[in-house]
Amino acid sequence: MVKNNSYQELLSRFNAYFDTHLPFPIRPAALYDPCRYILEDSGKRIRPLLCLLSNQMFEGEEREDVYKVAMSLELFHNFTLIHDDIMDDAPLRRGKQTLHEKYGITSGILSGDVMNIYSYKCLAEVRPHLLKPILDLFNATAIEVCEGQQMDMDYEKKEDVCIEDYLEMIRLKTSVLLACSLKAGAILAEAHEDMANLMYEIGINLGMAFQIQDDYLDTFGNESNTGKAVGGDIRANKKTYLFLKAFEKANAQQTEKLHTLVAANSQEKVQETISLYRDLDIDKSALDLIAYYFQNVEKGIAQLQMPEEQKEEMNKLLHLLINREK
Amino acid sequence: MVKNNSYQELLSRFNAYFDTHLPFPIRPAALYDPCRYILEDSGKRIRPLLCLLSNQMFEGEEREDVYKVAMSLELFHNFTLIHDDIMDDAPLRRGKQTLHEKYGITSGILSGDVMNIYSYKCLAEVRPHLLKPILDLFNATAIEVCEGQQMDMDYEKKEDVCIEDYLEMIRLKTSVLLACSLKAGAILAEAHEDMANLMYEIGINLGMAFQIQDDYLDTFGNESNTGKAVGGDIRANKKTYLFLKAFEKANAQQTEKLHTLVAANSQEKVQETISLYRDLDIDKSALDLIAYYFQNVEKGIAQLQMPEEQKEEMNKLLHLLINREK
Repeated sequence: MVKNNSYQELLSRFNAYFDTHLPFPIRPAALYDPCRYILEDSGKRIRPLLCLLSNQMFEGEEREDVYKVAMSLELFHNFTLIHDDIMDDAPLRRGKQTLHEKYGITSGILSGDVMNIYSYKCLAEVRPHLLKPILDLFNATAIEVCEGQQMDMDYEKKEDVCIEDYLEMIRLKTSVLLACSLKAGAILAEAHEDMANLMYEIGINLGMAFQIQDDYLDTFGNESNTGKAVGGDIRANKKTYLFLKAFEKANAQQTEKLHTLVAANSQEKVQETISLYRDLDIDKSALDLIAYYFQNVEKGIAQLQMPEEQKEEMNKLLHLLINREK
Repeated sequence: MVKNNSYQELLSRFNAYFDTHLPFPIRPAALYDPCRYILEDSGKRIRPLLCLLSNQMFEGEEREDVYKVAMSLELFHNFTLIHDDIMDDAPLRRGKQTLHEKYGITSGILSGDVMNIYSYKCLAEVRPHLLKPILDLFNATAIEVCEGQQMDMDYEKKEDVCIEDYLEMIRLKTSVLLACSLKAGAILAEAHEDMANLMYEIGINLGMAFQIQDDYLDTFGNESNTGKAVGGDIRANKKTYLFLKAFEKANAQQTEKLHTLVAANSQEKVQETISLYRDLDIDKSALDLIAYYFQNVEKGIAQLQMPEEQKEEMNKLLHLLINREK
């Protein structure tokens, strides 16, 4: 009998579990205080939630190792945030000081390292006969996340980044961990391999839609919804999907204008870029691509061999994620 | 039938395996070139060798997963060197530029991260029924290594470090990984748990002897043997065993002299400190403590339940390590 806990219920269970089962000891305080600091503000906890929901879809039986893997995903994700923030020299994360801003770069490196290792410690709690496939999935994913981060940094310096490069970068940096979360949930439910792989593909498409939506909202979002000023990516000349698509679609004159705007540091830079993007229908291109990936998500869900009611909560969550305005 | 390959033979086999089975792809080059760079100069490869020798002692059968675990230990060790060198701001390692000096801190962080993950990828190749104990051992060790590094950094700023603190720090930072190497070899040979734990204890004592010997050689070593100038630790006011023992044994007048020497930045600082250490018999104290730990190593070896000839190569290697002059 498959349980059908709402995603809100699963999230609140995970949050309760996470807060009471954090594996860090007290000492050395300089190592573990920073770990607790970054986990204080919970973020969205999408990855654990995807894992738990996927698991529930295929099984319904609640085993502790699913929570351990969900915790592992959250720890791993936070480890990458800590180190990425050092590499990107970011002062703020979720509205508060980044870990290395508060505790120093040395702490950022070492606390990140130990958090990564704790994510493996959580994984080791998987039922022994599932440990190898879970570990293989996790290792392959973690390596790809590092590769994606490297590509992201490479592209900052590279002149001729094409859209294909960009999509591959976000697949590695963002999508594979969402895909891993969904697939891990399925593996832990001992779902058929084809179904587990389908969950992985759903996660890839979800991640792509999610990241391009991030790009879209940064430029075309509603400030009162997102809670932050639009145009951060434009000011930073970030090579987002919008940026690259604009250069692809622009005629000679528009290309020249784009180059001028990239070089500019003016007050008007953001508004003028947005206006040019609108002339080029870049907002529409982005929404089309998001819709394309999200249709793939829906097709994937449709292919899952199970009663429709078992898909209900996952569908709700996916629609929520993709219709978010922040 | 137990094989009795010499440790030189095992080392050369490991080196051949390591060089041909390095798991890094070509791209992204900015991620993996640094990984290849640090592994170019092989270092002593003590950890893989201890693992292979321990495995041979208990089993004799050569399985590929032992090499994978040996590789994992070497990758993990190098990952810690990369990140430690960033934290210590070290310009040189094994006579060449440190990784972050050559490629930048960002590369140092990310290439270190991916190397850590590859060490887990190698571990995942362990025969499935041994994966859980190996992973547990490795995780516990890796966490302790991070804790040891944190304590080392904490002690740089702390005034009242005692010898007990120092010994605990080097146990975590250095000894547990040697202990893990020996125990992993035993686990992979499916040795009795008591024997695997005994190997762990041998490794702890070996690590303690090894690290205190490092301290000893840095101050009392023969420059023509060690290949580097003595007194690096003294110049840096490093709180080594010698430093802490000197403060412990010094009378009021000598304590004052020690404080003066710590504050000094003179040409004579090293020689005067060494001379005071000799007055206090610190060289003898260090040699006594090394001998104490090494006797524990020998007692441990004596307790191993196996024919003496199976212990021969391990004994040779241990004596070589402990009688090293560099």
